[in-house]
Amino acid sequence: MANQTHAPDATVAHTSTALLTDQYELTMLAAALADESAQRTCTFEVFARRLPNGRRYGVVAGTGRLLDALANFRFGADELNIVAKFLDDRTVAWLRDYRFGGDIDGYREGDLYFPGSPILSVRGTFAECVLLETLALSILNHDSAIASAAARMVSAADGRATIEMGSRRTHEQAAPASSRAAYLAGFTATSNLEAVRRYGIPGTGTSAHAFTLLHTDTDGPHEADAFRTQVRALGVGTTLLVDTYDITEGVRIAVEVAGPKLGGVRIDSGDLGVLARQVRKQLDELGATETKIVLSGDLDEHAIAALRVEPVDSYGVGTSLVTGSGAPTAGMVYKLVEVDGVPVAKRSSHKESIGGTKRASRLARSTGTVVEEVVYLAKNPAPDPGGLQVRELMIPLVRSGEKVPDLPDLADARALVAQGLISLPWEGLKLSNGEPAIPTTFVG
Amino acid sequence: MANQTHAPDATVAHTSTALLTDQYELTMLAAALADESAQRTCTFEVFARRLPNGRRYGVVAGTGRLLDALANFRFGADELNIVAKFLDDRTVAWLRDYRFGGDIDGYREGDLYFPGSPILSVRGTFAECVLLETLALSILNHDSAIASAAARMVSAADGRATIEMGSRRTHEQAAPASSRAAYLAGFTATSNLEAVRRYGIPGTGTSAHAFTLLHTDTDGPHEADAFRTQVRALGVGTTLLVDTYDITEGVRIAVEVAGPKLGGVRIDSGDLGVLARQVRKQLDELGATETKIVLSGDLDEHAIAALRVEPVDSYGVGTSLVTGSGAPTAGMVYKLVEVDGVPVAKRSSHKESIGGTKRASRLARSTGTVVEEVVYLAKNPAPDPGGLQVRELMIPLVRSGEKVPDLPDLADARALVAQGLISLPWEGLKLSNGEPAIPTTFVG
Repeated sequence: MANQTHAPDATVAHTSTALLTDQYELTMLAAALADESAQRTCTFEVFARRLPNGRRYGVVAGTGRLLDALANFRFGADELNIVAKFLDDRTVAWLRDYRFGGDIDGYREGDLYFPGSPILSVRGTFAECVLLETLALSILNHDSAIASAAARMVSAADGRATIEMGSRRTHEQAAPASSRAAYLAGFTATSNLEAVRRYGIPGTGTSAHAFTLLHTDTDGPHEADAFRTQVRALGVGTTLLVDTYDITEGVRIAVEVAGPKLGGVRIDSGDLGVLARQVRKQLDELGATETKIVLSGDLDEHAIAALRVEPVDSYGVGTSLVTGSGAPTAGMVYKLVEVDGVPVAKRSSHKESIGGTKRASRLARSTGTVVEEVVYLAKNPAPDPGGLQVRELMIPLVRSGEKVPDLPDLADARALVAQGLISLPWEGLKLSNGEPAIPTTFVG
Repeated sequence: MANQTHAPDATVAHTSTALLTDQYELTMLAAALADESAQRTCTFEVFARRLPNGRRYGVVAGTGRLLDALANFRFGADELNIVAKFLDDRTVAWLRDYRFGGDIDGYREGDLYFPGSPILSVRGTFAECVLLETLALSILNHDSAIASAAARMVSAADGRATIEMGSRRTHEQAAPASSRAAYLAGFTATSNLEAVRRYGIPGTGTSAHAFTLLHTDTDGPHEADAFRTQVRALGVGTTLLVDTYDITEGVRIAVEVAGPKLGGVRIDSGDLGVLARQVRKQLDELGATETKIVLSGDLDEHAIAALRVEPVDSYGVGTSLVTGSGAPTAGMVYKLVEVDGVPVAKRSSHKESIGGTKRASRLARSTGTVVEEVVYLAKNPAPDPGGLQVRELMIPLVRSGEKVPDLPDLADARALVAQGLISLPWEGLKLSNGEPAIPTTFVG
């Protein structure tokens, strides 16, 4: 694809990821090639200075997508045409042969992170590493924001099913990435078909209000016709949406039409807790004791937690999930921390960072409860854990530009989130604003 | 592309947009095909029930992208394989031949909107229209959220240049769409190269702190070397980033290295207003009276407005722009409003809508200041404007499935936003929370 020549066309999907990049990465490259500093050996580090909105932990997500995108970070004829408009010939020639040839270490996808955790460490020449900044941050910031919000929702749902249905409230290509991040964080299923295709996530969905409204004639609405058709087409295990008109009447008709083996009813509006109780009682009285109740409609982790006491079987979450529940970006940065073995760091106000290539480990009690994130310089041995259990957090992801074989996959990442949540001290799962669940200590 | 057969691969860019869709659109289709209601003539309408966060206006954006995506909403072999897992054979066969063949009217891209404005009106059979819900909302909700935030920033910048540099804080494919929406709303340029390629938006960018830090040796940092190289490679008109170490020293070195014809200096941290004043004074004293000051670092519309009194030449805006400055989605919905000529509407609590296919016009005084948005049923004549100027807001976008020729392009949309902001009553441009700038009146 990247080597085809064709007229620019906004509708063409370009396989190359090389232009998903800020222009200044390329002007820096041009300048660095001019004075030979381009060849200096560098480490860039991805980390978050803080967790958003008083969150107590973050979830690393996007690593798998980033490694796929990295393989397509190549400049074909079409990409070179664009950059040639502002770059000198030497730089354009250098880009023609570009592929990342360095090493990347990082946290496992699905691991928790805290302020200062060195989530990704990219090593190679300045030239080959600087180009990856924008792409790496776009993917990690987006996916980690969604996964971090999703994990709080899963935790609040306390074992009940959670369905991601936010596609309509985010960019059309961010939608399948959001589904992936939500599934990674423990969501049960997604409404998004592209996520089903790309990532094999279980798909779900039955009907919207439009389907009920469609069954309207000049003499008025015919909710029963809509339900009857849906059950005939999708089976008695389907979920009927009962709140288009009157909910009590909707439930009555649903069970009348489908019988007591009806799979589920969905309520998308109103005071969801009160309605769930009423509808459960009504369903039970109608003999539909196994019919599940699905709630949706402006749910977030706080609403989910407040509904814990109610007879709910699954939660459908849209807007608040795909917008990170108030934190739509994880705020990670990609910082140069080492040049030819010398630690470097910006000194200007409020944006300090710590120089040097780093490693990290997480310390836990014998019960498995974590107590501290320790970040240390890679040139030093790991600090003495003082009798605590220790887990090294960074694994090799890329060696000499090639993805390391047998990296953890989406299922592994999902399992790791679940383990991570269990490992937190109990305060760490509180939804209220607070300090990070464990402190991060830098050992120089 | 859609008709190629290949193994599922998360890294392949699929040109078909058909799976950027919620599963329930397709199960509703299957059920509607089963009882013939699929062929009923319907109108679906896109509108926002409210403006987010006390905003006073919204900006319609994404229409052009939606019409491009619509042309690729076709089910090839790969898409059919996925949907065949949960759909009956008849529905799959129907999808094989699917193309939208109906009509779409809507607001011009770049026009302002208010609560209840019928931004898009999609007419055709239920089957062909229902499938477009998710894609239409994903695109319009994303792009309108960004454009609506961007317009407030442009308005606050009061004629000074505004640069979109938020790619790293949003999904990698949402980034170029965000650049487009920002440019449409009046931003001057973007850092995102894919937006340069796809939409021809002016690109910009020179260097990050990493480039200065790269010029560090065992004896310490060499800021002057970094500046010298950058000026040599990018010309004296470049913008030097002066806040890696000490800003005053950075400015001194910048002018020493580049001379008084230096294009610009960028400040990315600290108390930006105070620093802008100090740096302007210092630049002027050094004879660099034409050197521009670019500010960046966590700017939003409020910070931009607060900096109006300072000697700033351009603002670089990242996170707050691509996250919609607190409103990352526009919250538009896609509702069935008419079936075979009968108006339909959901009755459940807090989510009422008004049935019937609608049109809209905007009334203005002879000065051009708008006073009211009037929404009326399409079957009725336009209401009497009572001596006010009247502008019909909906134009034909698609006829029998084909995009209408010579639709307004991105430049037209940009001009329309600028006109729209001028047309608002002065309260409409206030950044504080409040009521919509003009009321929306529904004439039944």
